Amino acid sequence: MGKKIEISSKGYEDGSFQPYEFKRHAVGERDVLIEILYAGICHSDIHTARGEWGEVSYPLVPGHEIAGRVIGVGSKVAKVRVGDLVGVGCMVNSCQTCSTCSTCSTCSTCSSGEEQFCEEGKTVYTYASKDVFHGGALTQGGYSNNIVVDEHFIIKIPNHAELEKIAPLLCAGITTYSPLRRANIKEGDEVAIVGFGGLGHMAVQYAKSFGANVSVFATSESKRDLAFSLGAKHFYNVKNSEEMQGLNNRFSFILSTVASSYEITEYTKMLKVDGEIVIVGVPSLTNPATLDATSLIWSFRRKVSSSLIGGIKETQEMVDYSVEKGIYPMIEMINIDELDQAYERVLKSDVLFRFVIDMKSLK
Amino acid sequence: MGKKIEISSKGYEDGSFQPYEFKRHAVGERDVLIEILYAGICHSDIHTARGEWGEVSYPLVPGHEIAGRVIGVGSKVAKVRVGDLVGVGCMVNSCQTCSTCSTCSTCSTCSSGEEQFCEEGKTVYTYASKDVFHGGALTQGGYSNNIVVDEHFIIKIPNHAELEKIAPLLCAGITTYSPLRRANIKEGDEVAIVGFGGLGHMAVQYAKSFGANVSVFATSESKRDLAFSLGAKHFYNVKNSEEMQGLNNRFSFILSTVASSYEITEYTKMLKVDGEIVIVGVPSLTNPATLDATSLIWSFRRKVSSSLIGGIKETQEMVDYSVEKGIYPMIEMINIDELDQAYERVLKSDVLFRFVIDMKSLK
Repeated sequence: MGKKIEISSKGYEDGSFQPYEFKRHAVGERDVLIEILYAGICHSDIHTARGEWGEVSYPLVPGHEIAGRVIGVGSKVAKVRVGDLVGVGCMVNSCQTCSTCSTCSTCSTCSSGEEQFCEEGKTVYTYASKDVFHGGALTQGGYSNNIVVDEHFIIKIPNHAELEKIAPLLCAGITTYSPLRRANIKEGDEVAIVGFGGLGHMAVQYAKSFGANVSVFATSESKRDLAFSLGAKHFYNVKNSEEMQGLNNRFSFILSTVASSYEITEYTKMLKVDGEIVIVGVPSLTNPATLDATSLIWSFRRKVSSSLIGGIKETQEMVDYSVEKGIYPMIEMINIDELDQAYERVLKSDVLFRFVIDMKSLK
Repeated sequence: MGKKIEISSKGYEDGSFQPYEFKRHAVGERDVLIEILYAGICHSDIHTARGEWGEVSYPLVPGHEIAGRVIGVGSKVAKVRVGDLVGVGCMVNSCQTCSTCSTCSTCSTCSSGEEQFCEEGKTVYTYASKDVFHGGALTQGGYSNNIVVDEHFIIKIPNHAELEKIAPLLCAGITTYSPLRRANIKEGDEVAIVGFGGLGHMAVQYAKSFGANVSVFATSESKRDLAFSLGAKHFYNVKNSEEMQGLNNRFSFILSTVASSYEITEYTKMLKVDGEIVIVGVPSLTNPATLDATSLIWSFRRKVSSSLIGGIKETQEMVDYSVEKGIYPMIEMINIDELDQAYERVLKSDVLFRFVIDMKSLK
């Protein structure tokens, strides 16, 4: 297993996808080689590919919602075996302080299972990220046939899971599950989900499963019935100013999944005292969300924060919970040649709710 | 006691204070008549008097840091007797759901002791506030000889307390104590206090008493030693760019007492994961603080909120705690004829740290 793995993929460059071949780093003693069977398309793939979150190098292979099967393992891998179903999300490495010993801990985030916030600055994201553990090469993501990942960052998938629907859980699932879990939602709490796309439709299902009365805020009237069918109790069309009246002091928790420009304090006003809004949609730098500090200050004891995916332990918990409860994304399967059209359709919110690439279509 | 109480005071109008006589409402059966002995000058008195937080009616008598002695009680008052030392803070009434029975509760904030957030919208502030319980007249504050207040809103002051120093606790004390208490600060937590004036110098003492390692951010080098003497471990001069380097991920909790313009996300970046900044300084509407939403979103899991004084039960707890621990403001006593100069000096931060009016000087 000591040689670099040859990879076929689709790389984004000059505004569209082209076939791209490159090599993954060799399978180290704690690495797992995965045949990718499905890859979800996340809005952040598009933001990144188009340089909307900052400069990137091309060709760029996006994809951090990866589901597949183990086809090789390093000599010291204990977590999985060849043949196991596994997933990879947004991270492929971090300093891993104390994943192997209990005395040398210096990175409190990694040792507490929050590898996305590695205090050593060594979180390696699944694509477009400098891999400090492999000579500083940029990582390439999941729109490809294989990937090599440190076993700590592998998520185990139960054999009876609907594998093609697991892929989007690795980002859309954990991104919404984690802040909703941390919010300690109780039976009957009034919870709002703002935005009803890839993230939002997962958030509704998790919030409902935790016992909340779920309200959905969306811009498309056509999604009203879908929201109810996934467990929402109320639906507010944000373009309908009448529906948006009288909502002050309504919610104890709001999760915002909006990835375009909006004024955040429109929602902080809807929070009860000690309520909280957590933002998981990340708009582009050129079309950002805004937050009026004066409104926030005068909305006393309403908290605003954001959240970034979740740690590996919590991601495993989320996959296990989702499979147990039958919480899955609604997906539309595409072939890899449809990537460019799929990106255009995501930008028009013309997908219910997540595209998943069937990687058999990659030749 | 059925007649209206005649009051001498100083009222603000046309940019300065003039003698002003008016009548308080009659002492009702649950009301307490208080001879005011000391009144603190709060920055919000100035903001309000000058219309910087919105339009107000003149003459306006500010003052919501009131300490004095009971000189009359209504027939049903049980909480205090004539001769008792008492305080009045920022509120004089609210809907008071369930202060007298336990079955009719509809206002969850008042019934849980958070009268400043009365869901019925009936919180009556100590001055410049429509008193819906007395015909809608505007309230007038503590720069006066007497005040009449519902017993629920009276704070009891121990006989051995330093009464002149108690007055500022009723706003500056509770405003800082409440969010620091809610933050559940543990021994050794890194806590920052931004701004080192009337509020800030109280916050340092409370945070220190809760076991925190306290850092102070201030604009005046001359306050460095004072900060250390009140318990700070570190002092950062925000005008010294070198001192402001390397502070990312440093604090678990930040309390901002700044009442002028600044960029809040300069401080959110200094928070650890799951850290929180609470804002208690309220800048004027024309010179507001700002908050860059993009920076906040990308500072994942750093919370921003604000806080408004505290409820009556918590205010009593704060006074008792402060007296027990010997936590008092540093004050400068003035006569009532010095009000205009005092306001100018507050605006120049030229006071250590709180002016208190000796009400004997009011003829």
